[in-house]
Amino acid sequence: MGSLHDVVENTNVVCPPNPLDPEEFRRQGHMIVDFIADYYHNVDKFPVLSQVSPGYLRECLPDSAPNHAEPIEAILQDVRNHIVPGITHWQSPNYFAYFPSSGSIAGFMGEMLSVGFNVVGFNWMSSPAATELETIVMDWLGKMLNLPKPFLFSGGGGGVLQGTTCEAILCTVTAARDKVLTKIGRDRIGDLVVYCSDQTHCALKKAAQIAGIHPDNIRALRTRRSDAFGLCPETLRSALADDVSEGLVPLYLCATVGTTSSTAVDPLRGLCEVAAEHDIWVHVDAAYAGSACICPEFRHFIDGVEGADSFSFNAHKWFFTTLDCCCLWVKEPQHLVNALSTNPEYLRNKATESKKVVDYKDWQIALSRRFRSLKLWMVLRSYGVANLRNFIRSHVNMAELFEELVTKDERFEVVVPRNFAMVCFRLLPPLGGLSARDCGLETANAITKRLLDSVNATGKVYVTHAVVGGVYLIRFAVGASLTEERHVRSAWMVVQEQAEALLAEFNVHPVMQEQTDAVLTAAVHG
Amino acid sequence: MGSLHDVVENTNVVCPPNPLDPEEFRRQGHMIVDFIADYYHNVDKFPVLSQVSPGYLRECLPDSAPNHAEPIEAILQDVRNHIVPGITHWQSPNYFAYFPSSGSIAGFMGEMLSVGFNVVGFNWMSSPAATELETIVMDWLGKMLNLPKPFLFSGGGGGVLQGTTCEAILCTVTAARDKVLTKIGRDRIGDLVVYCSDQTHCALKKAAQIAGIHPDNIRALRTRRSDAFGLCPETLRSALADDVSEGLVPLYLCATVGTTSSTAVDPLRGLCEVAAEHDIWVHVDAAYAGSACICPEFRHFIDGVEGADSFSFNAHKWFFTTLDCCCLWVKEPQHLVNALSTNPEYLRNKATESKKVVDYKDWQIALSRRFRSLKLWMVLRSYGVANLRNFIRSHVNMAELFEELVTKDERFEVVVPRNFAMVCFRLLPPLGGLSARDCGLETANAITKRLLDSVNATGKVYVTHAVVGGVYLIRFAVGASLTEERHVRSAWMVVQEQAEALLAEFNVHPVMQEQTDAVLTAAVHG
Repeated sequence: MGSLHDVVENTNVVCPPNPLDPEEFRRQGHMIVDFIADYYHNVDKFPVLSQVSPGYLRECLPDSAPNHAEPIEAILQDVRNHIVPGITHWQSPNYFAYFPSSGSIAGFMGEMLSVGFNVVGFNWMSSPAATELETIVMDWLGKMLNLPKPFLFSGGGGGVLQGTTCEAILCTVTAARDKVLTKIGRDRIGDLVVYCSDQTHCALKKAAQIAGIHPDNIRALRTRRSDAFGLCPETLRSALADDVSEGLVPLYLCATVGTTSSTAVDPLRGLCEVAAEHDIWVHVDAAYAGSACICPEFRHFIDGVEGADSFSFNAHKWFFTTLDCCCLWVKEPQHLVNALSTNPEYLRNKATESKKVVDYKDWQIALSRRFRSLKLWMVLRSYGVANLRNFIRSHVNMAELFEELVTKDERFEVVVPRNFAMVCFRLLPPLGGLSARDCGLETANAITKRLLDSVNATGKVYVTHAVVGGVYLIRFAVGASLTEERHVRSAWMVVQEQAEALLAEFNVHPVMQEQTDAVLTAAVHG
Repeated sequence: MGSLHDVVENTNVVCPPNPLDPEEFRRQGHMIVDFIADYYHNVDKFPVLSQVSPGYLRECLPDSAPNHAEPIEAILQDVRNHIVPGITHWQSPNYFAYFPSSGSIAGFMGEMLSVGFNVVGFNWMSSPAATELETIVMDWLGKMLNLPKPFLFSGGGGGVLQGTTCEAILCTVTAARDKVLTKIGRDRIGDLVVYCSDQTHCALKKAAQIAGIHPDNIRALRTRRSDAFGLCPETLRSALADDVSEGLVPLYLCATVGTTSSTAVDPLRGLCEVAAEHDIWVHVDAAYAGSACICPEFRHFIDGVEGADSFSFNAHKWFFTTLDCCCLWVKEPQHLVNALSTNPEYLRNKATESKKVVDYKDWQIALSRRFRSLKLWMVLRSYGVANLRNFIRSHVNMAELFEELVTKDERFEVVVPRNFAMVCFRLLPPLGGLSARDCGLETANAITKRLLDSVNATGKVYVTHAVVGGVYLIRFAVGASLTEERHVRSAWMVVQEQAEALLAEFNVHPVMQEQTDAVLTAAVHG
């Protein structure tokens, strides 16, 4: 460590005359484009899951910033040597973990333009194109999703680009909260209750807590395997009735289309009907699965959204738009504005006062905002609706293929029905003459966890896990932009090889059932 | 409109085989680099403040997303024709509005790498380099600012990159809130009180409201011109005593180093001493001026920060790092983690359980996070501490020059002492034989507002305004990366020319004082 830095410091490199000198920008820009293009060429050769240990980077870098300038060539060398090994390669075609972070050329180019202009579009005035393009693109996208007209600007509602779903939920919870507190009095904040299911993303709990909802008033309602882990409207109805009878005030429901653990879908129509009985705000979180709903054959998953107050999905997950980009639509933007607006003197301007413009600072948490719509606009135009649908379909087809491969192998089980491009499966090996189905949940969970660890340790693929209804499962999420059918087939071979090795271990060393259980239980908790 | 799109749709352009094809990426990447380099070459020729009218872009773009792919060349043509005219050019050397959004080559290249890798660094495991580089860079930067050791990882505290100051304040208010409510009971959220001055950025009020602080319990304490609009510790002491005597619970003070309106500085040491008497959380918001504190001669502005609990500044303002990048340090990260952590099963992993790693998702609002440290690291290394200080100093010197020019012209007044690279001035013309100093605040305000509008209407420069202590002033903030002394001199000539034209108007048409007042009053409210 340090040697490169020392050399550079001693040679006293001259700093470019201006930090934004156009010709130096051009020189370095071309260099970085080639660096990244080469990275994409080679990304399938890196271990998908980074193999470094905690603290690795402090060993490689100096303790303090350099006093003098260092050349880009030296910095890129350090990126190659020290940063790339610490990256988990979300752009790898062998990445099947969490949900995808599907980059694209168009998304990248839009981001470059946005970073190049580097405007701070807090209100219309500060850069009109940033606001106007966002309103246009959100209407385009709303139409692609066939969102009900009241969600579009052209129908009295409107869309806004947030960074993440967490922010979208926090903004809408806050809007709902202030709408209700304005009626019943600020002092009753402690009486407000927020609803979700036990499958809802943790973003809901976090957002509700940030917004000052009492932690005891966040209801994670139980789902069942028989409902495919969707939230049953009757469960909601009963929870609402209980709270109302306690004198509490139902506020907000977060329904999910495509849960993180298993891509379960809450039945929107039924839930919205129940919610309407208590006039609570319904937000639909389709962070992952929203993208699929641009395809007519998947649109039914958000049937009933017309009863909701807000809807969001992450274009940075499965819509070929780089991180971060969460698309949020609301029927009544005024509720966001009422809760989130600020009007300091130093931001007063004629455009705002004309009331002919949108000032997006009042639709989000932060004042400053990036020109995010450029990248989404470039994705929509560079590919067009037809290709975007086909990209999504090709991922779903690959997931379907993987599902078939799993199904054909009797040592495995597909745990829940596949809705989109993710397959949830587990290993169910025969153990000690009993099938794992018979040998207890804990054993089955432990062996699947062992399989997950050994698959990831190969570095050839990366998959992650979830537990639904007590069942430990491996999530196989197709969606990385570079993934092709051959990568899915290879991934399945890796899974099979590791499963065989794992089973061989038990065949070579047959043990009593209790011992096996003990070993595996230790593994799952270790 | 439409013609270009129609042609493209009809020719049925073939979509690239893969949305991340490396060779197509390379081709388009080089094209965009050249596009942006050319933009920087020409940015001084555009009207700084966009001259478009509300709704202009809907006239230029189709109502729906295209069905088929469009080539990058066609999209870039639309960027040139339709987007650039709607941009307010924050990167122009003639941009002196709000605070700077100082881009740099290094910041841009870091952002490109981050977008290219497109990792989602919510926890250590998801991409170790993203977390580790951030902890290292935040320690580097903390040392450059000479922050007290307890703010650094190496001293038990730590730094984190947020998007904006709004988020930094919201996170720390939430941390402070939960720390106190855990002791006194959740039901007392309505008793918590947050303090700031009447000069504090609106982010504080917004963050406090989002966090569920009662809107009546946000105290914007009065500042005075005699204190240069800094918050007097005695004012705070008295407010605290009043609230305590009412049975309320003081929670949080936001002190500012470099206010938005006039770069006023709150006296940190005195405020922290008073705050300590009530054990309230002190956050120091140095969003703009923090950058200057890497120069030893400006470091005294944050003397006393050792008594604070958290400190933040925006690297995207005046630190050559593209939007967004807010640097936040806290002495006790555990309070952030207690308030903001989530631990769903699907994110469980061995690294987290080893407690040897930082999981930044628990230090911020959102779960997902960009690899922001790359750009900051590249800025620190590409320029080095010495050059960064010199960049800052050159801006301060240019502001000093502008201040001298204003001071020498007796028709103008510098309203408050200049602390950093921003000059606050107003026009004080002789009117009807009286000097404006004598002819009333309203008249003086009105004529300065007229001057602002006419200066901005030239398109040659962009400046914005503030009102402090009732005085309407023009803020001249030096800090755009491309700005050189000649731009500052030209800007001053534009101001003088417009002032002369404005004064000539009154000389050609001499009017009674009351009428002048009426005209100008209409102007300021119009």
